[in-house]
Amino acid sequence: MRDDTTKSAAGLGYGPHTLAIPGPSIVPDRVLRAMHRPSPNIYHGELVDLTHSLIPDLKRVARTEHNATIYIGNGHATWEACLANTHARGDLVLIPRTGTFADGWGEMARGLGLRVEYLDFGNRDAMDAAAIGARLREDKAHEIRSVLAVHVDTSSSVRSDIAAIRSEMDAAGHPALLQADCMASMGCDVFEMDEWGVDVAIAGCQKGLMTPAGMGFVFYNDKAARARARADCVTGYWDWVPRTEPEIYFRYFYGTGPTHHLYGLREALDMLVHEEGVEQAWERHGRLARALWAAFERWEAPGGLELNVRDRAARSHAVTSVRLPERGTALREWSEQEFGLTLGIGLGMAPLGSEEWHGFFRVGHMGHLSGHSMMGTLGGIDAALKALAIPHGDGGLEAATRALVAD
Amino acid sequence: MRDDTTKSAAGLGYGPHTLAIPGPSIVPDRVLRAMHRPSPNIYHGELVDLTHSLIPDLKRVARTEHNATIYIGNGHATWEACLANTHARGDLVLIPRTGTFADGWGEMARGLGLRVEYLDFGNRDAMDAAAIGARLREDKAHEIRSVLAVHVDTSSSVRSDIAAIRSEMDAAGHPALLQADCMASMGCDVFEMDEWGVDVAIAGCQKGLMTPAGMGFVFYNDKAARARARADCVTGYWDWVPRTEPEIYFRYFYGTGPTHHLYGLREALDMLVHEEGVEQAWERHGRLARALWAAFERWEAPGGLELNVRDRAARSHAVTSVRLPERGTALREWSEQEFGLTLGIGLGMAPLGSEEWHGFFRVGHMGHLSGHSMMGTLGGIDAALKALAIPHGDGGLEAATRALVAD
Amino acid sequence: MRDDTTKSAAGLGYGPHTLAIPGPSIVPDRVLRAMHRPSPNIYHGELVDLTHSLIPDLKRVARTEHNATIYIGNGHATWEACLANTHARGDLVLIPRTGTFADGWGEMARGLGLRVEYLDFGNRDAMDAAAIGARLREDKAHEIRSVLAVHVDTSSSVRSDIAAIRSEMDAAGHPALLQADCMASMGCDVFEMDEWGVDVAIAGCQKGLMTPAGMGFVFYNDKAARARARADCVTGYWDWVPRTEPEIYFRYFYGTGPTHHLYGLREALDMLVHEEGVEQAWERHGRLARALWAAFERWEAPGGLELNVRDRAARSHAVTSVRLPERGTALREWSEQEFGLTLGIGLGMAPLGSEEWHGFFRVGHMGHLSGHSMMGTLGGIDAALKALAIPHGDGGLEAATRALVAD
Amino acid sequence: MRDDTTKSAAGLGYGPHTLAIPGPSIVPDRVLRAMHRPSPNIYHGELVDLTHSLIPDLKRVARTEHNATIYIGNGHATWEACLANTHARGDLVLIPRTGTFADGWGEMARGLGLRVEYLDFGNRDAMDAAAIGARLREDKAHEIRSVLAVHVDTSSSVRSDIAAIRSEMDAAGHPALLQADCMASMGCDVFEMDEWGVDVAIAGCQKGLMTPAGMGFVFYNDKAARARARADCVTGYWDWVPRTEPEIYFRYFYGTGPTHHLYGLREALDMLVHEEGVEQAWERHGRLARALWAAFERWEAPGGLELNVRDRAARSHAVTSVRLPERGTALREWSEQEFGLTLGIGLGMAPLGSEEWHGFFRVGHMGHLSGHSMMGTLGGIDAALKALAIPHGDGGLEAATRALVAD
Repeated sequence: MRDDTTKSAAGLGYGPHTLAIPGPSIVPDRVLRAMHRPSPNIYHGELVDLTHSLIPDLKRVARTEHNATIYIGNGHATWEACLANTHARGDLVLIPRTGTFADGWGEMARGLGLRVEYLDFGNRDAMDAAAIGARLREDKAHEIRSVLAVHVDTSSSVRSDIAAIRSEMDAAGHPALLQADCMASMGCDVFEMDEWGVDVAIAGCQKGLMTPAGMGFVFYNDKAARARARADCVTGYWDWVPRTEPEIYFRYFYGTGPTHHLYGLREALDMLVHEEGVEQAWERHGRLARALWAAFERWEAPGGLELNVRDRAARSHAVTSVRLPERGTALREWSEQEFGLTLGIGLGMAPLGSEEWHGFFRVGHMGHLSGHSMMGTLGGIDAALKALAIPHGDGGLEAATRALVAD
Repeated sequence: MRDDTTKSAAGLGYGPHTLAIPGPSIVPDRVLRAMHRPSPNIYHGELVDLTHSLIPDLKRVARTEHNATIYIGNGHATWEACLANTHARGDLVLIPRTGTFADGWGEMARGLGLRVEYLDFGNRDAMDAAAIGARLREDKAHEIRSVLAVHVDTSSSVRSDIAAIRSEMDAAGHPALLQADCMASMGCDVFEMDEWGVDVAIAGCQKGLMTPAGMGFVFYNDKAARARARADCVTGYWDWVPRTEPEIYFRYFYGTGPTHHLYGLREALDMLVHEEGVEQAWERHGRLARALWAAFERWEAPGGLELNVRDRAARSHAVTSVRLPERGTALREWSEQEFGLTLGIGLGMAPLGSEEWHGFFRVGHMGHLSGHSMMGTLGGIDAALKALAIPHGDGGLEAATRALVAD
Repeated sequence: MRDDTTKSAAGLGYGPHTLAIPGPSIVPDRVLRAMHRPSPNIYHGELVDLTHSLIPDLKRVARTEHNATIYIGNGHATWEACLANTHARGDLVLIPRTGTFADGWGEMARGLGLRVEYLDFGNRDAMDAAAIGARLREDKAHEIRSVLAVHVDTSSSVRSDIAAIRSEMDAAGHPALLQADCMASMGCDVFEMDEWGVDVAIAGCQKGLMTPAGMGFVFYNDKAARARARADCVTGYWDWVPRTEPEIYFRYFYGTGPTHHLYGLREALDMLVHEEGVEQAWERHGRLARALWAAFERWEAPGGLELNVRDRAARSHAVTSVRLPERGTALREWSEQEFGLTLGIGLGMAPLGSEEWHGFFRVGHMGHLSGHSMMGTLGGIDAALKALAIPHGDGGLEAATRALVAD
Repeated sequence: MRDDTTKSAAGLGYGPHTLAIPGPSIVPDRVLRAMHRPSPNIYHGELVDLTHSLIPDLKRVARTEHNATIYIGNGHATWEACLANTHARGDLVLIPRTGTFADGWGEMARGLGLRVEYLDFGNRDAMDAAAIGARLREDKAHEIRSVLAVHVDTSSSVRSDIAAIRSEMDAAGHPALLQADCMASMGCDVFEMDEWGVDVAIAGCQKGLMTPAGMGFVFYNDKAARARARADCVTGYWDWVPRTEPEIYFRYFYGTGPTHHLYGLREALDMLVHEEGVEQAWERHGRLARALWAAFERWEAPGGLELNVRDRAARSHAVTSVRLPERGTALREWSEQEFGLTLGIGLGMAPLGSEEWHGFFRVGHMGHLSGHSMMGTLGGIDAALKALAIPHGDGGLEAATRALVAD
């Protein structure tokens, strides 16, 4: 019988291909199905009602009772939107840095004419809230107008304690806005906009919100709304005022809305908010992340894998950055070709395409993800370690299942 | 037998519902199917290749050999994008006005800090190129930096002669940029960016390009590229420089691309550019429009319908604005409920929701449209005229089929 | 401007293509969407509940309080199923004939070992119930075991009066079963299984029931159930006993069920039974058919079109057979290539592909059909008549819209 | 932070749900997408060409150069079809039995009027070809007309050596037909119709062929074709003669074809035959099965799991039956609710729903399956064993990954 004698490792990549990059994440079948429909009327009827219904549910995800706006755009668009609505040219913003997305936000700020100051915490550790507090206390003149904090940096997978930053800001009596980038975290890692005292939060649809890329969300509270008054670089497209509770439908999007995405988002929010529940989704992501960490902590070995973030408390529940000197790209390629699993490239740790860059990869575990998804992905990494003879400790997979079922 | 005795007019609205509003237009099944897929890898592979392939085809649609950029956004986003890349604050732009979308573009320009001057041609006639020329000749100081001309105003359905404007500009020796809004027209009405001397053109995906709303396109030539140098209100998101022929994929969209829309657009461009052909699509829209005009010209009657644009040469091939004093809304509602046909509301002719506003409607006939679609739509209007006892001339439908098959 | 000078008739076929053949009919987007899903568990859960829910709704469509069974198969399968459950080899069945589908049913009966006797009423007239009664009265020995009556013959579009046949059977005191083929009619033409005294009725999913081809339905009452006792050619697959109210799910289909079709049918029945209502769907089809007849009656001209069935009372509301000597194929081809409309070929009137065969075509107007669909189709025929210079009377289209809105 | 204190095991079932039952299997996105389309013309054009193209590819999957036919129906329909075409009433068929599907085939044979004799090999071992040979040698009168051998019994997961049966038949000089049920195996387990001397083979679309349930396939060679001559229970619907290379399209299916399924099957065959290759798919299934066995062999423990089939050579590569006294149902339910994984119920080992029945489950691993799928499924079982404190050996998952990458 042929199959007993043929033994090449090739071919396991046939079958359903799984994407485990840190965004876009896996889109549920239901969401895709909801988007497979004729274009609707954009002046009245179903789409208008549906759009109204999204706003309160988005607020439930961000945990705010304040304002939610939807932009057709990506995460970069929401960076520009939140800054344009809260700043005047020349304003100084303070950016505690834990990865490359802090750089990106700063670049965007400079493009708007703002001045940017970084507090760099490297790529492997959470922000030191006390250091931020110290800097704010130095700023007697209250020149710093915003602290721009990336909750989870998608590149490094570092998660920082946003509530602690607020405490320091309050303790320092500093009036700056606290703006949080929740692109990678929203719907996955615990985030409490109002409770934590976040003034502006941004997120996208294509990660924890399980909808194809193309929309971003800006949440803001009353303090941020007041900052809008002195904003002098806000333009028609970014202005959040007419987009918030608009009387005329098209003002939601300043023009034609993203019709099909809205249907998709409605379905995704039904799943996240009304079926599973946001807190339950956080728990699920937490449990899945702990399973992943358990596996990696067993696999770690000299010359082998290492989780980029050493402190469990500073690790995201949505994305995990991994160091694997020299072999990261090889592991990704084996997984993709031989196993049907696409892992994320390293980002921000070394110049793209450089020798060093090949020593990193990332696992996306955000959004639509089950125990089955996670164990399949870990199984792929375990298989790759064996196939490529990468040094690794034993027992990773079973450590993962133990973590999955732990009390 | 029951069906011989029951005679209510109700119920014809069951069955396939047809949307005939001037955007979003009907999305082909093939495009929806192409978008119904898992999220792809955004770093390499299929999506990257596919995105590269879109650019030359978009240029074929705009008829330019210069630059094409894709923005996640709607038409308003492209208004902001084109202005931000070509102007400094305080610049004066001249807007010949033939409908409400000229007002919208001007509002956007003011939001960017530009000064706006209108030449108003009302809502029923094309722009008078000579009048534009006269104004430019007055502008000895060349204070006017752009002429912003809406090719087809979606509200009034007026189409203007863009090439004639260029001739006047050239005759006046005026260096202003000629920017054309082709939102409603691209892929439907003849438009020749390079041949007509247009410096910047904008369009969206959800009309003639048959893709769900969510992307806009900005085309620009070398002269416009030079204007970029003095632009002082361009921000990171709008900057077209990195988006044009980027070395790194994510620069196309300054962040995550609109993954599913790109698959949809690829399919739509296959249909428009490679199967039907752009020129053939123009011919089709022309033929269909002439059929519609033939019907309306027969239907016109005192106290009844009247095409908003009297001069055939000034009528769009993609959208038709109709005047029907007092009864426009009634006709739309009958069509929708009793016939399965959604017509567009009047826009820009009277305050939304006012008494007068009820005296208008629009027919969208852009993009994915066959003879069957057009005759179904005209049949709906003819049925509504009869059902509502609106005065109208006879023979409209047969005038339409005659026009469809005319040499 | 190019479009004013290019005048070829070609190209109207781009855009949405419309299928107007007498089955398969147009599948609603909602039904396709409902079928686009992962395979479900077939042992318990959603699919099982859903399947149970189909049975009462199918009975509502057939207007019976008796039994409904679902077969994976086409119309021919249901022919075999209904006969196999009600007959012993050698039984005589009487088939009043109004088109080629009567021949097909008879061929199927012969394949099962039954004897077949036809009463031929040609291809253009309804069955003469009195003639059937006369034949039954002659059959003193009650050798005839079933009268197999095609309600609407899809080939000729002749509709017969099934209730009248029952009256004659009762008047003759004849015990034969009355079996009705409602393939083309169910959900479109009025049909009352119980009220009309029909013992067995068959239908398929791909016409009035708006679901992709692949399932057939057999309805039967207690009298038919009793006939099952003497059936000696029934096999495991056709046996309707275990399929009727089965205790174990897989008995519904004697094996694996047609998972995706069941989801599709659920959606279609939601539309037909719970949203529009069966009686309202009949009314809609009646009104649409009268509009079609009105157009054709105006178009009729020497050397031109002629409706195959002259008597309005004998015309189906779901399909219309048309005679157009020599030019039928030409008209179909023009419609398809130049207008985006696919009409049905003639069937059963002349040998397929023969010279005479080119003199027929059919219009399908069953299932998911609005006023817009019908006027688009009639517009295509009107355009074809003009394009091909086929003699025809004026005013067809407006006669149709008048009929659509008539009290 | 909430997620660190909440520790319930619940909730991992959110996210993508995975079906791992032995049919229907997972339908690839591409196949579903191919089926999401308007109904096509069934008389000429694309669908007709596409259908022709399926036949040679189906033969490639069955590894035959003879005849392939497509039936709208399920596996039971193909049982009836193959028997009806090859037998006269009263014929004796010999059924070597390795599971409950042999019983089903025999029941079907009896329903057709055939006489059935079983050779029972239990539920855990392959057929003993020598015993079959011995029985055939006893049958001097050649009363046995067919040997009906289930290649892989979906209930027990026993795979038998079909070629060995042919050798015995040849050695015995017995003229009976060898008919093989490849429902569970085709496209997964090695099967060589012509090379192994199989006269008739049947399969369905919803397992290794990755298409939604609703079609079955009957393959037959010239010897079987000759048997057709004496078949006296074949009816119109089952007759394979007109279905084989028909001149008129509708004869393929004796009536309307399963339009959408044909599009789906085309896509599935593109994947299986033209992209991966049938032999490569066999290799993939073999490798995945060996990984599964490796895990189970490690997990086996007193009071715990046991693979139903002890002999590796007798195990299917497509389905695995597992014994887990008392806890089988509990494990399935945990997997479904807590992990997002649906495993198959036990079948044929004990009366459905009985106490003993709860001691079995099955894993489907047929068709569209990657390394990721398999490791996710094994991860779910490992997690369930731990969560439910079922005795089990260690190291199952890593044994699986070792097997996946073994030379």
